[in-house]
Amino acid sequence: MEEKQGAGPSVETIPDGDNRPRRICPDCGYIEYHNPKIIVGAVCAWEGRILLCQRAIAPSQGLWTIPAGFLELGETTAQGAAREVWEEAEARVDIGELLGVYEIPHISQVNMIYRARMLSAACAPGIESEAVRLVTWEEIPWGQLAFPSVRWSLERFRDQGAARVYAAAPMAPLTPR
Amino acid sequence: MEEKQGAGPSVETIPDGDNRPRRICPDCGYIEYHNPKIIVGAVCAWEGRILLCQRAIAPSQGLWTIPAGFLELGETTAQGAAREVWEEAEARVDIGELLGVYEIPHISQVNMIYRARMLSAACAPGIESEAVRLVTWEEIPWGQLAFPSVRWSLERFRDQGAARVYAAAPMAPLTPR
Repeated sequence: MEEKQGAGPSVETIPDGDNRPRRICPDCGYIEYHNPKIIVGAVCAWEGRILLCQRAIAPSQGLWTIPAGFLELGETTAQGAAREVWEEAEARVDIGELLGVYEIPHISQVNMIYRARMLSAACAPGIESEAVRLVTWEEIPWGQLAFPSVRWSLERFRDQGAARVYAAAPMAPLTPR
Repeated sequence: MEEKQGAGPSVETIPDGDNRPRRICPDCGYIEYHNPKIIVGAVCAWEGRILLCQRAIAPSQGLWTIPAGFLELGETTAQGAAREVWEEAEARVDIGELLGVYEIPHISQVNMIYRARMLSAACAPGIESEAVRLVTWEEIPWGQLAFPSVRWSLERFRDQGAARVYAAAPMAPLTPR
């Protein structure tokens, strides 16, 4: 099917009532907003061991990480974290409390990292992982972690023990407006 | 300056290694990702009163809200919350603890709401506000709040008193990779 193809958001200007330049389509007025993205992930535990994935892709290929990735449209952050655990480590988990929020403003990322309980020891590398391992605290390859946020997440997991820090907000009744 | 104008991200397909359709530019391979957006806001207090804004724009024009809006590129969530307070209510604040995360997955929004202390009673309507008010708890117009997240935020503010629930993550040393 052939459709009329407009110029798309190709003109950079500050829209009325705004204070930052955005790209606007000169044909239809569509405004393209770029905003920070949310990474969701989890420190997943099974009988005192922690689930780590060896990255099969850039950046930090070959280094170790907790399962984490971009939140997708329509998901809650807990659903997204569970999906990432499945996609990267083929493990099923119950997502627990939010361990913390790790911000990386210079790349416009907000990481929301959960504590999770594995439903069994089953795990296997997903398409973005070369290998997955369940390791004790002593076996964590501290010198080969993929990102500073991985160490931060693991240390928060350790330090907070079973203390309740934060639980994801219960949904309010949704009354579409 | 005239530039070569490609088709832009106009073809919907599932990229290699992905599992969701994205829009891709057939000329350059650019992949356009749409992801959930972060709303940052704050319950701002001054001497026992709370700062509310009457919305001058849709949605919920004429109803009352706490200052909140989309996080912009390059900001921390606390910086974004302080910016929104300034833009909507022309008040200066110290951003405190994260009161909570309120998720609205059906519109792909994650609200991160902070507790904030106003530096003075000074406030005035910004461009998106018809009016701003500093109200006591009893004066809050519960029947005229703009969104369910506003009530939720106010109630979390009240219920948590001065308890420390969550502090935004200190930045780890940033080592560009």
